[in-house]
Amino acid sequence: MPKTQSYPEDAIPCLDRGFIRLVDSMGGDDAIVQAARVSYGKGTRKMSQDRGLIRYLMRHRHTTPFEMVEFKFHAKMPIFVARQWVRHRTANINEYSLRYSEARDEFYIPDEEHILFQSKLNKQGRSGEVPADLKKKVQDYFRDISDKSYTIYSELNDAGIARELARAVLPVNLYTEWYWKNDLHNILHFLSLRLDPHAQYEIRIYAEAMAEIVKKIAPFAYEAFKDYVVGGMRFSSIEQARLTEKLPDGVIDDLLGDAMYSIVATLHRNKPRNEDELFPLYQKNGGQDSEEDFQLKWSAGEIEMGNVRELREFRLKLEGLKNIR
Amino acid sequence: MPKTQSYPEDAIPCLDRGFIRLVDSMGGDDAIVQAARVSYGKGTRKMSQDRGLIRYLMRHRHTTPFEMVEFKFHAKMPIFVARQWVRHRTANINEYSLRYSEARDEFYIPDEEHILFQSKLNKQGRSGEVPADLKKKVQDYFRDISDKSYTIYSELNDAGIARELARAVLPVNLYTEWYWKNDLHNILHFLSLRLDPHAQYEIRIYAEAMAEIVKKIAPFAYEAFKDYVVGGMRFSSIEQARLTEKLPDGVIDDLLGDAMYSIVATLHRNKPRNEDELFPLYQKNGGQDSEEDFQLKWSAGEIEMGNVRELREFRLKLEGLKNIR
Amino acid sequence: MPKTQSYPEDAIPCLDRGFIRLVDSMGGDDAIVQAARVSYGKGTRKMSQDRGLIRYLMRHRHTTPFEMVEFKFHAKMPIFVARQWVRHRTANINEYSLRYSEARDEFYIPDEEHILFQSKLNKQGRSGEVPADLKKKVQDYFRDISDKSYTIYSELNDAGIARELARAVLPVNLYTEWYWKNDLHNILHFLSLRLDPHAQYEIRIYAEAMAEIVKKIAPFAYEAFKDYVVGGMRFSSIEQARLTEKLPDGVIDDLLGDAMYSIVATLHRNKPRNEDELFPLYQKNGGQDSEEDFQLKWSAGEIEMGNVRELREFRLKLEGLKNIR
Amino acid sequence: MPKTQSYPEDAIPCLDRGFIRLVDSMGGDDAIVQAARVSYGKGTRKMSQDRGLIRYLMRHRHTTPFEMVEFKFHAKMPIFVARQWVRHRTANINEYSLRYSEARDEFYIPDEEHILFQSKLNKQGRSGEVPADLKKKVQDYFRDISDKSYTIYSELNDAGIARELARAVLPVNLYTEWYWKNDLHNILHFLSLRLDPHAQYEIRIYAEAMAEIVKKIAPFAYEAFKDYVVGGMRFSSIEQARLTEKLPDGVIDDLLGDAMYSIVATLHRNKPRNEDELFPLYQKNGGQDSEEDFQLKWSAGEIEMGNVRELREFRLKLEGLKNIR
Repeated sequence: MPKTQSYPEDAIPCLDRGFIRLVDSMGGDDAIVQAARVSYGKGTRKMSQDRGLIRYLMRHRHTTPFEMVEFKFHAKMPIFVARQWVRHRTANINEYSLRYSEARDEFYIPDEEHILFQSKLNKQGRSGEVPADLKKKVQDYFRDISDKSYTIYSELNDAGIARELARAVLPVNLYTEWYWKNDLHNILHFLSLRLDPHAQYEIRIYAEAMAEIVKKIAPFAYEAFKDYVVGGMRFSSIEQARLTEKLPDGVIDDLLGDAMYSIVATLHRNKPRNEDELFPLYQKNGGQDSEEDFQLKWSAGEIEMGNVRELREFRLKLEGLKNIR
Repeated sequence: MPKTQSYPEDAIPCLDRGFIRLVDSMGGDDAIVQAARVSYGKGTRKMSQDRGLIRYLMRHRHTTPFEMVEFKFHAKMPIFVARQWVRHRTANINEYSLRYSEARDEFYIPDEEHILFQSKLNKQGRSGEVPADLKKKVQDYFRDISDKSYTIYSELNDAGIARELARAVLPVNLYTEWYWKNDLHNILHFLSLRLDPHAQYEIRIYAEAMAEIVKKIAPFAYEAFKDYVVGGMRFSSIEQARLTEKLPDGVIDDLLGDAMYSIVATLHRNKPRNEDELFPLYQKNGGQDSEEDFQLKWSAGEIEMGNVRELREFRLKLEGLKNIR
Repeated sequence: MPKTQSYPEDAIPCLDRGFIRLVDSMGGDDAIVQAARVSYGKGTRKMSQDRGLIRYLMRHRHTTPFEMVEFKFHAKMPIFVARQWVRHRTANINEYSLRYSEARDEFYIPDEEHILFQSKLNKQGRSGEVPADLKKKVQDYFRDISDKSYTIYSELNDAGIARELARAVLPVNLYTEWYWKNDLHNILHFLSLRLDPHAQYEIRIYAEAMAEIVKKIAPFAYEAFKDYVVGGMRFSSIEQARLTEKLPDGVIDDLLGDAMYSIVATLHRNKPRNEDELFPLYQKNGGQDSEEDFQLKWSAGEIEMGNVRELREFRLKLEGLKNIR
Repeated sequence: MPKTQSYPEDAIPCLDRGFIRLVDSMGGDDAIVQAARVSYGKGTRKMSQDRGLIRYLMRHRHTTPFEMVEFKFHAKMPIFVARQWVRHRTANINEYSLRYSEARDEFYIPDEEHILFQSKLNKQGRSGEVPADLKKKVQDYFRDISDKSYTIYSELNDAGIARELARAVLPVNLYTEWYWKNDLHNILHFLSLRLDPHAQYEIRIYAEAMAEIVKKIAPFAYEAFKDYVVGGMRFSSIEQARLTEKLPDGVIDDLLGDAMYSIVATLHRNKPRNEDELFPLYQKNGGQDSEEDFQLKWSAGEIEMGNVRELREFRLKLEGLKNIR
């Protein structure tokens, strides 16, 4: 099957013969903000610039504004990948039909790098390097069965057997293609599952390409998704109990103390105050150092800044860890 | 409450203070055809021009290509209308929230024309003219209760009572607004229910405005929807039995006969044939007149043309009515 | 592969190795009525017995009460059938996973009766008898490719290659299985598409078995579905125009006249009247015969009865056919 | 409006006149396990007892088995609560219709305890005690507007005005009722949002009652939901960076060290080993103490036990906190 592949111009190649490309989209970061502002009304217009608002929405699971952005992709992938993909049920799909049309001689043959042993630990994973000759054998087998099944299919097809029946001899490494349309909220959910290291390599490749496209269309939303969903670490209530039991009080207090200095420094940067307003501001935000200590640390200068809202939420979580005790 | 209404520029006014407007859309008739052609593969590219393909898809309930077109509307309507509207669950919605923001002094007061009596026949309908003084009374009551509730609401709000609680005194003729995003297939389903004469007048007005917008963006799809869904007449199997029992054989045969001449005439118009090819074409299409009769009728000339595919389906239905006998 | 099949006790066998069985269900006809009565309130309790109410709901597309009944099926079917089935997106699915578990040596081999030629007319259909030796060849090919692919799969599996990769050599006639849970409204929609003669034989077999189960759990709902959805005949507005143009006035008038006598006879059966109340009742229902003619026809006696509500709707449709003129 | 309330027998009262009750359900913890085992095939039957499997599924977001359990509730609540509730779109709903039926004289009047000021910090919250006389005034206003609107409604209704129109004068504290059917996965999602302290009190009350019911039908699933979803604490990638920067290495090492002893002790409890197998087991699980230290700590005896799988995941997270450095 040595054919030269030709892809649609704007396609991102995936696997040996597949691709994904953006066909159309509606809205981006602006549409998220626009929709959120209808919900919150004019009273909140001052609340934030776009980026901050989008991050707030993501952090607090206000998911409906993300549904206001729509993407339509054209993708070509092996049937066994399509079978995982199709389980995301909010999407609209139009797939190439082997009842209407002839199958094309295009099959997925894994490259050497991704032929791995079954993971012992993870029932659904791969791990462990395979010897070169076994890799070769795997590839040969994939080619053999693809060729043989396509030859049979073609013969049955030429003999006039109904297409919908003849196609049943074709293996799930056959490429299919479809239009797939979905909203940003549900696309991010798809990505959170399919970018995960536990996702099967062959679908992860498509998720990575899709993520690149999403990042271009809605960069703030994608950044927030990375920070709060992909990069998030969740401790169960059992783990929290263990953490709070073992973390020395002092460690949490240190973290808390630092957070308060960060809040004040960030507020000051956003809207500079007079010298004499800083300690009251620190106290108002819950700081418990004496004025003397405050002046000392403040002058020392190495205070990290951040986002006030995010810092306050962090403080609440840290206090939560102490409260369980 | 005599205020001057101001609408967004491109809004279609609905009721006394509401509107609907298109915020954004993705695709149109072209996107339906594009998606259908992925499904059917290149083998069927010749199948038809766009309009014919779209009508075929609508007639045969191939609904997924219509899902590839997306609309986003901004609408403002009374709460009791929103409550019916929200039941269409595939839509994405962002609604103005009275937890976050203050209610505005905007209430629906029905105009005289649409103040009607409860229908006796239809539990959910209106019918019968109401005397002028009772109409006046209805409007006065609507204004009174709107004013009184808004006054109370404002007082509670000014006193600092939580907004999410204070709003509970407001009646369902209060206007709310939202962004509403949905795909064309589900919008047409919405329209099939809400354009219906049995739909409540106050939501039908919005459906009519929405239909105008849809017609502009996807004219072929909308036309097919009108012909096959809105304008369709469905006979149950019981009614069919009654029809076939009572319709004289001759009447159906006449309809069938005419349909065959229409098919031949349409085929001939689409691709002109020689004189001597016409009778064989007629026979091939199931015509049972003698050649003599054929020539006679053909020359008589008043043969109505149509769409060959549609005429053939009509013939099948007529034959179906005879077969039940 | 000569194995003895063993099915779960209550399973309905489908194809050569598949089945479908009901695992659990929630509600039946009673649950539809119960839900409808919440919507309509106590004021309508007298409205009808259960069967009549269910038929009314079906006829008028009041679909939500049918969503209140839930079914959970366990089914085993070839992958190419599962691929069509999964497109019904409201269902909940748990499928046997070839990432976690080993594939089993179970493949679909079509029986002779269902090996047919590609339909010329219908791009997605079969038609035309296949010679015996070609049928034999098809079956041999199916067996060959199934055996060969399973042998390769087993060898790769034994060599320790990751299951999620090795499975990619298996053809789509491999059997898979799943739990599939859905509500009655969406199941009926599935059946309306998959019981259709245009549905692929291999999925229609499952739809037929599913229909048997549904009929047992919700017999009135299923009967109404057959009468109004499956057995319904829909005329487009174009076809209606053609019908009304060609149907002689007299024919429709005859149908209308008969319908009115049927209405009166049915009302009389349901609640017997005095002799002298019958003609006024006839007039009240729109009958236009003179009293003399009425008495004559009434005494003649061969009046078919039905359901009053359904007869009235039929009358409206017939009048609709006249009105278009 | 001093009426005696009567509830359906098994209803849990909510607010002053509302309730929620379970009408029917399909499956429970057993159905989750049953569905999961179809997905994982027989190979994994030994994997665990039911509780462990359910907790694993919850922790790892394998959500589909939870969709296999279905609940149907009957609830009565104020319209403004129904408006929030209805946004959970996977549910099936049949609501009491004011187009078909008369409104009943039942309105929500908040009790004194829950009349609070608007929160300054949280745009959608309440906080701060309201003086007794203002509370009294709020209640009086609620009663006034409810009475007045119902009087108007009744008068219009008696005058024969169409119900669908007359109802538009009624405020959103009017009680409505519905049947609401949903699957366990989506019910838990509903609960995660509506049990939250930020949810409006008037819907949280229903969520709490619903949670009680769910806990009875699927106790393991509910327990896992509490531990991993409700009780979970999520740190964003930014917060993790801050944590790892500030947490002394030693503190994490201590937590890690303890976790390994817990793992060994739990393994030993589950399947007792010989004395001389314990240190190798400790090493195999990543323990880095010398044998001498191991013996010492082991004999000291105060080792907390847990669940091996959960402890290993905790260890990975702690190592993750170190790795970022």
